[in-house]
Amino acid sequence: MERSAQQITRAILEEPLSLWELLPLTGNDATACVSALQNLLTSGLVTRQGNKFALTPAGRERAREMKLTSTPDLTCPACEGKGLVPQVFFSQVETELAELAHRRPDMKAEFDQGCVRVADSLGRVLVMYRQGDLEGREILFLGDDDLTSLAAALTGLPAGITVLEIDPQLVAFLRTVAQERGWENLRVREYDVRNPWPEDLHGQFDVAVTDPVETRAGFTLFLSRATEGLRGPGTALYFGLTRLESDLARWGYFQQTLLQMGWVITEILPSFHRYHLPGWQFVLEECPGAVELDPGAPSPGASWYTSSLVRLEAPGELRPAHTGEVRLGAELYVDGH
Amino acid sequence: MERSAQQITRAILEEPLSLWELLPLTGNDATACVSALQNLLTSGLVTRQGNKFALTPAGRERAREMKLTSTPDLTCPACEGKGLVPQVFFSQVETELAELAHRRPDMKAEFDQGCVRVADSLGRVLVMYRQGDLEGREILFLGDDDLTSLAAALTGLPAGITVLEIDPQLVAFLRTVAQERGWENLRVREYDVRNPWPEDLHGQFDVAVTDPVETRAGFTLFLSRATEGLRGPGTALYFGLTRLESDLARWGYFQQTLLQMGWVITEILPSFHRYHLPGWQFVLEECPGAVELDPGAPSPGASWYTSSLVRLEAPGELRPAHTGEVRLGAELYVDGH
Repeated sequence: MERSAQQITRAILEEPLSLWELLPLTGNDATACVSALQNLLTSGLVTRQGNKFALTPAGRERAREMKLTSTPDLTCPACEGKGLVPQVFFSQVETELAELAHRRPDMKAEFDQGCVRVADSLGRVLVMYRQGDLEGREILFLGDDDLTSLAAALTGLPAGITVLEIDPQLVAFLRTVAQERGWENLRVREYDVRNPWPEDLHGQFDVAVTDPVETRAGFTLFLSRATEGLRGPGTALYFGLTRLESDLARWGYFQQTLLQMGWVITEILPSFHRYHLPGWQFVLEECPGAVELDPGAPSPGASWYTSSLVRLEAPGELRPAHTGEVRLGAELYVDGH
Repeated sequence: MERSAQQITRAILEEPLSLWELLPLTGNDATACVSALQNLLTSGLVTRQGNKFALTPAGRERAREMKLTSTPDLTCPACEGKGLVPQVFFSQVETELAELAHRRPDMKAEFDQGCVRVADSLGRVLVMYRQGDLEGREILFLGDDDLTSLAAALTGLPAGITVLEIDPQLVAFLRTVAQERGWENLRVREYDVRNPWPEDLHGQFDVAVTDPVETRAGFTLFLSRATEGLRGPGTALYFGLTRLESDLARWGYFQQTLLQMGWVITEILPSFHRYHLPGWQFVLEECPGAVELDPGAPSPGASWYTSSLVRLEAPGELRPAHTGEVRLGAELYVDGH
């Protein structure tokens, strides 16, 4: 049995689940998950119960033959699977970050926004802290709808923080917070990744953090721009990447692209981020057949859309894939245009 | 300040530490760690106190300028950083695995042996379980001094388990356990990775687990052999990899090799395994200058040598780097021969 089908069968051994509850559990891309669910329906192993999916007697028999089990989620409840827990001054950072996040401007679908939970932004900073990528470092945030720059600034540890962000409202919000707090080392600029990298920011940073769009062209452009900003050997780069939007072959393309730019992958932490999304229609639109599987039920909330945290480190000189202006239209956000 | 030097400085802000305590904390290879420690000594930022290293007043001043902090380890105590905790029947598996591990034959330096803790072998199985790589799967263990095959067998979930192992004593031990337990689906064969892959085991497995030597030639050979055993699209491969023995450039070489064979990296979980090692002299021998930093103190035990858990998955056909016999002598275990 193919991986997605097996993971769906395991997930509904105890109780029926909706498409949205199944998507994050298969460890596969949304198209593969939708296709697997359709196959299970067609072959009579799964049946529809309202907006949920359940095993038929034949499906239950197949699960028994395959020795599939249903046990509680093994994800560590203490760290939510992150492996790190906020202690000492990080606990205070989490409280203050949550207060700031309440004031953030609305997320905008036109910029592919959708932000992670406060605990996930802080979690990124904990990973950076462990690796020595926080204290005394010059840190670049290329896009920051997750407010991770504020999590980093609240620790008081980085030497400097620079945010380049396309959304003028978010730029204004971050500037306001910096002013209120008297953070002179937090600088914010409006920037569109299609424009040339700012002259004065070439090779200026020790660490970069970004959350790229996941089209081939868009991903390469985001990662290339962040690379332009970094000093070179010994620098580190963090980004989020989903299995839901990007299938395994695309992950392979991304990894090849990163190695060609001179990066080495040091960590890939699965399901590290859980998103608040302004909409979920894009899954229905991009996956053939998904509309038929969703009878108009609302998205089950924050937890269905997850992404991995990836850390890169440079052993030597870096080679950005792009320099100068890059003319990308809709293919920045949608593949195949 | 370079990464290793910064991580050493952070680590000894509160109390002096030995070379062995510092090695796993820098997130860098042993040679870089030794070199950084020598530089800190030479530049007067660090001083020797018996077999430990402490900050000098100048080092403390430098740490203050760099805003370096000393806080408790943020590693989650509930899961030891693994992100997963053994529950329900996995707790019983851990107890039984510990009993079996007491009876294992001694580790042998000639086979580059050195086994991980019982909790780490079980942890691998938890990651496999999460990903659907355990239940109903045909699993290959290429080398098994960590006894992970027994952890998998104790769950009762895999369809079949095949161990290929070079050490005749370990082969005998695993066969004895299989017989005592009546595990007919656990098969064990003696095998040296330099020999051609067994004809009857080509493309037979859904999942493979190995713990390769970390020379360029040896790593490629181990991963290539495991790849020969796997079915192809959708199959998964797990292995351990250290930062201590392999520097970042070598990680890059390994990642390039894996992508060329058709693999994609889906997870890299740092410091997942902690080893019991029969000896530690190899670090002193392989790192220029390390002998001068170790005034004969014993190794501080199991925790200094750690490795990451890496998971690969195949989007399409696999292309092993080697087939047939491979004539490797000492360069299997030591680079540069």
